[in-house]
Amino acid sequence: MNDPLHTFFHPRGVAVLGASANPTKLSYGVLHNLVTHGYLGPVYPVNPKGGEMMGLRVYPSVADVPDPVDLAVIVLPAAQVADALAACGRRGIRHAVLIASGFGELGAEGKEEETRLRQVARQYGIRFIGPNCVGVLDTYAPIDTTFSRTMPGQGSIGLVSHSGAVCGGTMDWAHVVGVGFSRIISLGNQADIDIADALDSLAADPHTRVVAAYIEGLPDGRRFVEAARRLTAQKPLVVLKAGRTPSGTRAVSSHTGALAGADRAFLAACRRAGAIPVETLEEMVDAAIALAYRHPPAGPRMVILTNAGGPAALGADHVDRHGMRLADLSPETQARLRAVCPPGTMTGNPVDMLGGPQADHYAAALKVLLEAPEVDGVMAVFVPQAITPVYDVAVAVGRAAETAPKPVVCCIAGGGGIRAAARALHAHSVPHYLTPERAAFGLGALWKSARIRETLPPEPEPLPDMDRERVRALLEGKTGVLDPQTGAEVAAACGLRVPPSGLAASAEEAIARAEAMGYPVVLKRVAPGLTHKSDAGGVIVGLRSADEVRDALDRAVRPGERAFIQRMAPPGGVEVIVGGHRDPQFGPLVMVGLGGVYVEVLRDVAFRLAPLAREEARGMLEETAVGRLLAGVRGQPPRDAEAVVDALCRVGWLMAEFPQVAEVDLNPLIVGERGAWAVDVRVVVRPHPSPAAFGGTPSPLPNSVQERGGGREG
Amino acid sequence: MNDPLHTFFHPRGVAVLGASANPTKLSYGVLHNLVTHGYLGPVYPVNPKGGEMMGLRVYPSVADVPDPVDLAVIVLPAAQVADALAACGRRGIRHAVLIASGFGELGAEGKEEETRLRQVARQYGIRFIGPNCVGVLDTYAPIDTTFSRTMPGQGSIGLVSHSGAVCGGTMDWAHVVGVGFSRIISLGNQADIDIADALDSLAADPHTRVVAAYIEGLPDGRRFVEAARRLTAQKPLVVLKAGRTPSGTRAVSSHTGALAGADRAFLAACRRAGAIPVETLEEMVDAAIALAYRHPPAGPRMVILTNAGGPAALGADHVDRHGMRLADLSPETQARLRAVCPPGTMTGNPVDMLGGPQADHYAAALKVLLEAPEVDGVMAVFVPQAITPVYDVAVAVGRAAETAPKPVVCCIAGGGGIRAAARALHAHSVPHYLTPERAAFGLGALWKSARIRETLPPEPEPLPDMDRERVRALLEGKTGVLDPQTGAEVAAACGLRVPPSGLAASAEEAIARAEAMGYPVVLKRVAPGLTHKSDAGGVIVGLRSADEVRDALDRAVRPGERAFIQRMAPPGGVEVIVGGHRDPQFGPLVMVGLGGVYVEVLRDVAFRLAPLAREEARGMLEETAVGRLLAGVRGQPPRDAEAVVDALCRVGWLMAEFPQVAEVDLNPLIVGERGAWAVDVRVVVRPHPSPAAFGGTPSPLPNSVQERGGGREG
Repeated sequence: MNDPLHTFFHPRGVAVLGASANPTKLSYGVLHNLVTHGYLGPVYPVNPKGGEMMGLRVYPSVADVPDPVDLAVIVLPAAQVADALAACGRRGIRHAVLIASGFGELGAEGKEEETRLRQVARQYGIRFIGPNCVGVLDTYAPIDTTFSRTMPGQGSIGLVSHSGAVCGGTMDWAHVVGVGFSRIISLGNQADIDIADALDSLAADPHTRVVAAYIEGLPDGRRFVEAARRLTAQKPLVVLKAGRTPSGTRAVSSHTGALAGADRAFLAACRRAGAIPVETLEEMVDAAIALAYRHPPAGPRMVILTNAGGPAALGADHVDRHGMRLADLSPETQARLRAVCPPGTMTGNPVDMLGGPQADHYAAALKVLLEAPEVDGVMAVFVPQAITPVYDVAVAVGRAAETAPKPVVCCIAGGGGIRAAARALHAHSVPHYLTPERAAFGLGALWKSARIRETLPPEPEPLPDMDRERVRALLEGKTGVLDPQTGAEVAAACGLRVPPSGLAASAEEAIARAEAMGYPVVLKRVAPGLTHKSDAGGVIVGLRSADEVRDALDRAVRPGERAFIQRMAPPGGVEVIVGGHRDPQFGPLVMVGLGGVYVEVLRDVAFRLAPLAREEARGMLEETAVGRLLAGVRGQPPRDAEAVVDALCRVGWLMAEFPQVAEVDLNPLIVGERGAWAVDVRVVVRPHPSPAAFGGTPSPLPNSVQERGGGREG
Repeated sequence: MNDPLHTFFHPRGVAVLGASANPTKLSYGVLHNLVTHGYLGPVYPVNPKGGEMMGLRVYPSVADVPDPVDLAVIVLPAAQVADALAACGRRGIRHAVLIASGFGELGAEGKEEETRLRQVARQYGIRFIGPNCVGVLDTYAPIDTTFSRTMPGQGSIGLVSHSGAVCGGTMDWAHVVGVGFSRIISLGNQADIDIADALDSLAADPHTRVVAAYIEGLPDGRRFVEAARRLTAQKPLVVLKAGRTPSGTRAVSSHTGALAGADRAFLAACRRAGAIPVETLEEMVDAAIALAYRHPPAGPRMVILTNAGGPAALGADHVDRHGMRLADLSPETQARLRAVCPPGTMTGNPVDMLGGPQADHYAAALKVLLEAPEVDGVMAVFVPQAITPVYDVAVAVGRAAETAPKPVVCCIAGGGGIRAAARALHAHSVPHYLTPERAAFGLGALWKSARIRETLPPEPEPLPDMDRERVRALLEGKTGVLDPQTGAEVAAACGLRVPPSGLAASAEEAIARAEAMGYPVVLKRVAPGLTHKSDAGGVIVGLRSADEVRDALDRAVRPGERAFIQRMAPPGGVEVIVGGHRDPQFGPLVMVGLGGVYVEVLRDVAFRLAPLAREEARGMLEETAVGRLLAGVRGQPPRDAEAVVDALCRVGWLMAEFPQVAEVDLNPLIVGERGAWAVDVRVVVRPHPSPAAFGGTPSPLPNSVQERGGGREG
């Protein structure tokens, strides 16, 4: 894959517009870092005052800068940036980093200014990063266009962030504990280069082994998903997103003016993308160092090697919580441990060397455990005590684990004197954690990455019996909620199984239809604005004769309204709900949950992006009670889960192919032992669909879910 | 309340058995800390070698130690401890701290040795802490019987821990960041003094404002709950328990041989106790410092004051996740902020002072926010940058917040150079956190503590219509699963509403019963070993005539078996399940969930300790979908939720009063618009109940839940 940011990391020369000799200015920092952090090409300070800075000639204008120059870092106040960018364009510079804040994050006026930046860039064919960013760096190129005080060491973590402070904070921490990076990309307002470009760049970078992404807004969620899928096919991606709650959304939009999508859509996007979503900065960093330093485990069987029982017990709890378990150590392994551990060592798992192990004991025990076939990974725990030097333990663990193919993580607890130990561990490719729970999180990230690699969703399969032209014709000219008959016909055209049905304006017509389709039938009142028909007494089921149809029509349907008559589905089915809606960031989503009133009281629903592969739809059933219910409980026969999978794929296809479809609700889909019937199809069409293929106007949750604001997040 | 550990913290003299002059020995550390950490009474080293240590006369035997002496710290190998304890007893010492490991944590033999310690202690009237512990300390007394290298500063956190390493690690951390403690109690194997004693002691200690407890085993869970309730009536309690998962349970039992109860029982116990359960060491510490330094907020409206948008957005997300929200700042407050903040400050919430605020800006803005009536608490976030000294910001925030009644927490991020800032904040009673998410957790702990104080469960109310003697008579001599008729009679004697029912051995008898109670009836096959009767086709409902009863009996009941006939409950009810079972640590529990097959597929159940107050039972409905379902969805009428509350209380009474009742299942309880019917009552009686009033033999989950191993934890 080509690196879309190649020139940002490998320019043949860099101009710094706004360069300053005043050490309190950001522009001083940028120039300083370009000069002193290893970049070997020419650096051209630009400042109308001219003169000399850091031994370099200062050019009064970018027009005066000589060849070669591929990149401009513009460190000027917001009001001057657009003109400076144009000047760069005239000079033939096609890549720029815009540091200044004061753009889209300030609101409408700032957004206009950003539009102007884009216009200038388009005019001159410039790609730019920012504005409102810290810059970018590559520790291997090397180049550092940031104003950060410290340059991280070389490593294999690629960090991309919408927030400069998150970059800065992470770099500060990493510097102290000796964690290296391959590249850091501060995107700021991503007015041009966006998260997808950054992911493609990090996918192409051979030094990046894992990508950590801090995300605020995703104006084009699908572009992010596609880039993330390309990346995760090669290396793991850890994603921390702000703005996932009402308060967080408010904070994000006041910060970068970003539009935040629904959290369930974000999590569905992570599933499609094969990304590992995390909840906190600590989790982002904890996962990244594990994935940077170690290979994933071949299985879930972990060992805890410790000198203290309490922390080991907490570590064990969290090993379980992250889906792994404690290995059962064989008698042979335990005998080998007894031979190398201090007397009294408890050789079960956790392997507890009690109060007095020396560094050598850790090394020897670790060797035994890493050779044991029943062990997939190790957490070494050491609580500092007077008699054993912390640093020695760290070095011993590091050396014993460095080249092992199995993952080893190390918790050395305590408040002081352990930075050197952390640095020693990291130097030997063993991630260090301050607590056993975080060490377990690191192992969990490795385990999760292995599972994700195995279960990365395939491309959606083609679906037979889809009549695209028929759907198009049915939707033509429609807007709002389709009447139930049109809804049923749309469903049928999508290949869903729908009982025979029709509309009737009179009792005679209704009876004629019922006789034609056969009893029993259900009769529903058709009137604008009715959504939950059962609320209004407008649904009468189990009609078995002409008289019953006539009577039902009299009771339920008012003069001038129509009735929808449908053959009832065979009895004994299980009711589920299948739905589709559109997220403002991630576009069409499909949903499944238990049907009837339960979807409202239970909020037990799963979401995926549409269109989706059958394997993804199966995952939705497993994620909810739907799968367990369909499998058959208490002697009930199993129902046709594959028919629900099929319905989910077909609804996904409809949502993806027809952007004017805002919502679909099959509530219920009645699932029998063979096949499923869509008996109540609600389709909402919006008059002005978004021009984006997958985008679309914001729409609420499927009607049946939204009232309670609920749903287990997919 | 009396302090049961008073003498441990205020002895008139302390003997150290096994005192050593070798600085690598623990016993040296103990003597050193007693001598140098402020204890003002006499210290008597005891060692057969005699001589002098640290300027003190060494006594060859504890018998030689002069008055006054109230406490012995025994730092001898395990094999010598019992004899040393006896020697202390003969000398008239009634309190001892036993440091040595090598007891119950090693298995059966060690447990025997512990029993011997208890025998010696009983003989001489000695109370002891340990064995396998680090000792205790009180920073106000002051006294330090531990061998820890550092003595924490004075503070208001009381720490009690089963693990010495957790004490040590926490003290190391606290020392570095300047967090103080009132008391630290390392319980070890709690062979005598246990967690309940420690909680009573910390409740009585005027210097302790919050208690943090690390727990492994709770041999007497109810004793813990009662002590915790006494404590939480006065001050908050944060509990971290290891052994909550299968792997953690395994680790705990290999560590201290402790029996771990089910996690749902632990969480139910925390609810009863008013304790705040946490999941990690970090959370324990994060909650403890917030509760130690600040008062709880009056409401959930928080403000984030920041110099960086990204971290503020993450903080906002976690403010929401912990049940609070961002305050809406009034125009007045925003105007006041504009007057004191740097130009360009975004005065919404988060209040973002952008790149360049100075320490003074933090102080002034904090003052405005703490005075704003629409604000209940503040999170100050500062990401270090070149131009603003970190320490100055910390001092400014600390001074502005120190005496404010509203909670203020502070996140200063970054890896280096912030220890001094953390110490400054703590010195001014502002908790410091390294990340915004953890700062939000601190605020959340304060918010939770306020809510807990408000909703501390009352004592269970007396229940009318309970016929204790009738229940006793029905249970007399019974064992195993009671037949459905006896089950129904037990339920009726507990005051539950049960439809008329009876057993029949023949069709004639069945018909006679049905005619007497009135149709429709349900007929159930009665046979040993049948649990899920619907599995076996053994339940036939809706019988409306003698013929139908006869036919049903022929089909369902085999020769020699009996039939259970019951009048059907009125139609239109909602089915829920109400159950009771016994946890090995916490005794009787009650449970509620959706009835029928849903309890199995949904795992949406809530647990509480039995007996329980009506208010607790109401909380169980709110915690599950049961409450929403009973409230009425989609035009259905609301059902009688109070009848379910009543049923929960009655099942709780039965479980609490009759320890021989191992399990109760009302599945379903049919809840109508007025009242609820217990139509299928399953009661399991065990022949040998535990002698403990609330204990009892381990029993599994209610039958209907256990198969899926599930249940949302209560």
